[in-house]
Amino acid sequence: MKAVQIEEFGGPEVLKLAEIEEPSPNAHEVKIKLYATGINPNEVYTITGEYAYNVPNLPYVPGYDGAGEVEAVGAAVENVKVGDRVYLSAFGAERNSGTYAEKVVVDAESVHLLPDHVSYKEGAGLGIPGFTAYLALFQKAQIKAGETVLIHGGSGAVGSLAVQMAKAIGAIVIGTSSTEEGRDSILKMGADYAIPHVTAENKEKLLEVTEDKGPDVIIEFLANANLETDTKVIADAGRIVIVGSRDTIEITPRNLMSNEAIVTGMTVINPGEEAMNEMHHGIFAFLDTGVLKPVIGHEFSLEEASAAHKSLMESSGSGRTIFNIREES
Amino acid sequence: MKAVQIEEFGGPEVLKLAEIEEPSPNAHEVKIKLYATGINPNEVYTITGEYAYNVPNLPYVPGYDGAGEVEAVGAAVENVKVGDRVYLSAFGAERNSGTYAEKVVVDAESVHLLPDHVSYKEGAGLGIPGFTAYLALFQKAQIKAGETVLIHGGSGAVGSLAVQMAKAIGAIVIGTSSTEEGRDSILKMGADYAIPHVTAENKEKLLEVTEDKGPDVIIEFLANANLETDTKVIADAGRIVIVGSRDTIEITPRNLMSNEAIVTGMTVINPGEEAMNEMHHGIFAFLDTGVLKPVIGHEFSLEEASAAHKSLMESSGSGRTIFNIREES
Repeated sequence: MKAVQIEEFGGPEVLKLAEIEEPSPNAHEVKIKLYATGINPNEVYTITGEYAYNVPNLPYVPGYDGAGEVEAVGAAVENVKVGDRVYLSAFGAERNSGTYAEKVVVDAESVHLLPDHVSYKEGAGLGIPGFTAYLALFQKAQIKAGETVLIHGGSGAVGSLAVQMAKAIGAIVIGTSSTEEGRDSILKMGADYAIPHVTAENKEKLLEVTEDKGPDVIIEFLANANLETDTKVIADAGRIVIVGSRDTIEITPRNLMSNEAIVTGMTVINPGEEAMNEMHHGIFAFLDTGVLKPVIGHEFSLEEASAAHKSLMESSGSGRTIFNIREES
Repeated sequence: MKAVQIEEFGGPEVLKLAEIEEPSPNAHEVKIKLYATGINPNEVYTITGEYAYNVPNLPYVPGYDGAGEVEAVGAAVENVKVGDRVYLSAFGAERNSGTYAEKVVVDAESVHLLPDHVSYKEGAGLGIPGFTAYLALFQKAQIKAGETVLIHGGSGAVGSLAVQMAKAIGAIVIGTSSTEEGRDSILKMGADYAIPHVTAENKEKLLEVTEDKGPDVIIEFLANANLETDTKVIADAGRIVIVGSRDTIEITPRNLMSNEAIVTGMTVINPGEEAMNEMHHGIFAFLDTGVLKPVIGHEFSLEEASAAHKSLMESSGSGRTIFNIREES
């Protein structure tokens, strides 16, 4: 089968199309014929060989997320069967071979059913971004209907899912984007407000739409740039959830004494079995009822893997960057 | 009656002993013959006229906390009666006349019963420090038996109460102090461990006594110095409660993504009626059962008010600095 493989660590240029042997599932594994693969920034870090959470052996086929049809299951697998439409996210998988390929084998617990009306491309929009959005909103921020949430980068792969999930449970949603195109897409997803990125000098619009109280919840993708401003604009007893940060930042701890807001953080690597179970039920329900429609951005073929990684790091487009591996009939 | 009064804003030197008229309670107020008054750093800030939470009219008698005997009650007062032993904390009081005086009149809701076996001096150790310790541990950190708590400055006015309260409910308590005398006093209060202040260069002892997991809870009195280190040593899903901070600090938000710890803050000005009710019941029970014994540090007479303020800002002694106004028979 075809797969994108690296034989040395490095930048996007090390991603090469190769012909490799099809993997076979053991008793607890599932083999999936992939139709589409969601690309994560994590994978750009992983192929450098310097990503703390995953330093793979070489040669290595990257890719954590994807969607497709179950082709074979191990004897002990009970949650899915041959022919099922599924998505998968195998971030912690033992195998050294991921979803940048025509087929993949992963632990059965990494495989989740897709409702019939959700396309494989849409399924490829889930995985790590879906878990991130769900965990941040519901398990970390514990957002409730009627509360206001600010989603920095509301048009991105995670942000677009967070906007829809928050809206689905009755939150008042404010998404930010630096471009008018991004703000249009945020409004199309159902957000109540789409505004430019909130900074110390540019927070009036946010305060206006929250009646000067500030948002109850902030989902923060770039804490090193925004955390100090976040602690100033957050509502009393609000929650700031850090899901991304690249550097240090100077903050004023006293801000948190006055407003008694909470700052916390998360990665999708940490949740235990119970949290995962909650997420899968929650995400399935959102997909099934149709309130969650993953947004697909740029599409690439496996041959274009290097270009896909470059695009991911450069563009600020809407929705998720994917590999389109097979056309769905 | 005698009272310490200021006629102009400034440093400790503006505190002058004066003879002023005794106040009388209205229907909802209580008049208390004070035996001892607890001195707060807040009061040092208040007399400068530059403290955001309280800019009094002049002349002004400072003082939020104290303990004594009820001398008169307004017609509508139901929670205490003449002759009751009480402590009080009237931070938000409307009156311009506080507890640096032989008598004080405050709203009945600011007055709380003392068990018979608790001395007035000990009662003067409560008020703002007691509320701060209680709120931080139980309402903000929601500490549970068996969890480990690091109390920076465990020998101070707030820290000494926090050490005892945390120990009383079954937490494992680590107090810090810069002096051996301070650490001795922390151990005497029942802490499991007393160690020097924890810094980036001096965290081995803390990691050793927490079996490398770090504390579940940190009560932080100087976030501008310690918050970055706190976010590195806190246990997974731990809680850092900021109760004091004087400046900005550079932090690494990614620390909170890895350990999913929570950072929050508080002041004693914010709690609503329900939180206050919980605190008063909790603190009374701790006093009544004898597990909470407020520690008194330096004692001054009202005549020595300027020296008392200077001492408060300079010394790092154990327990609370008080005015000893009358000897208890």
